[in-house]
Amino acid sequence: MQKILGTLPKGLVFILSAPAGTGKTTLVRMLSKEFSCIYESVSCTTRSSRPGEVEGEDYHFLSNKEFKEKIDQGDFLEHAEVFGYHYGTSKALVEKQQAMGKHVFLVIDTQGAMQLKQKKFPAIFIFLSPPSLEELKDRLIKRETEAMDVIEKRLAWAKDEMIMLTNYDYHIVNDNLHTAYAILRSIVIAEEHRVKIN
Amino acid sequence: MQKILGTLPKGLVFILSAPAGTGKTTLVRMLSKEFSCIYESVSCTTRSSRPGEVEGEDYHFLSNKEFKEKIDQGDFLEHAEVFGYHYGTSKALVEKQQAMGKHVFLVIDTQGAMQLKQKKFPAIFIFLSPPSLEELKDRLIKRETEAMDVIEKRLAWAKDEMIMLTNYDYHIVNDNLHTAYAILRSIVIAEEHRVKIN
Repeated sequence: MQKILGTLPKGLVFILSAPAGTGKTTLVRMLSKEFSCIYESVSCTTRSSRPGEVEGEDYHFLSNKEFKEKIDQGDFLEHAEVFGYHYGTSKALVEKQQAMGKHVFLVIDTQGAMQLKQKKFPAIFIFLSPPSLEELKDRLIKRETEAMDVIEKRLAWAKDEMIMLTNYDYHIVNDNLHTAYAILRSIVIAEEHRVKIN
Repeated sequence: MQKILGTLPKGLVFILSAPAGTGKTTLVRMLSKEFSCIYESVSCTTRSSRPGEVEGEDYHFLSNKEFKEKIDQGDFLEHAEVFGYHYGTSKALVEKQQAMGKHVFLVIDTQGAMQLKQKKFPAIFIFLSPPSLEELKDRLIKRETEAMDVIEKRLAWAKDEMIMLTNYDYHIVNDNLHTAYAILRSIVIAEEHRVKIN
């Protein structure tokens, strides 16, 4: 039986960025549940584990010293400091999964994604946005009934987002989880069937 | 309800090339049956209509004079002569469908596709191949038990195909119709969600 996914000797890397609460984690979990060749990357962090969090599943918990060593060794594909804690994606861990033919999903913010983009890291960049952005676009185009300060704030936010968006390869609006999943799934399948010039 | 396909104001153009008997027509029919936003382009030809063929559905039947005029007007995206008859894709007809938000599928041979590629015509190029090519690849890599002349012939054919293939964006092997359809469908959905820098 011909496989729809998981036929490559070396897996691809997908970057998924989205504002909080957009459903990015849910979507990647759905994908890894349907396809065994999908692996969600586990980040390294210097923050302490919270009750219920499992080492190697939720995060790789590192000390500041260990994290610093990894930076010096150049092992981080991207890393950032958020509220005094460090977060990063280990190159070695990603490559290990790719070598097993797995497509690795990095669920990272736009800053981390842009670090990878600047390095010309070979990955497929997907931006997931809440429906409001689309709704907003439509609304601002079709009518002008909102107070100017509201319009301006929304426009500014949308503009920032849209500037980021142009650095991504794909844009999915999560208006309906089922549809957003079908689109994400399609992107992964399509990318696996892309002709690469070797 | 969020639509998975058919959300663009202007449709895309997809080029599908494949050796005869690979199932390309079946696949495009399946797609246009599932999605009303998929339109299979109807070629112009100077050959006579065969019994049962319908003008505007199977072909646009033109006289040699009419075809020549269209060439002179630059209306053909690509055209070729096969066994003394002319075949071509009308730019005006494709653009009309695109303007209606339809994705236009051009089922054309590699020569026609390469004419479009050379013109840098904005389209997504998909190559469909029978499973034998893949099987062949595996076989030639894994073992060397065939007679040299057979291996050479197959290699030459595969080489020609593979050279063509590198000009395409996607490669689908039609080993199983259901799987090949799922891949084609995914490519169209993915491409509609590509971020375009306007």
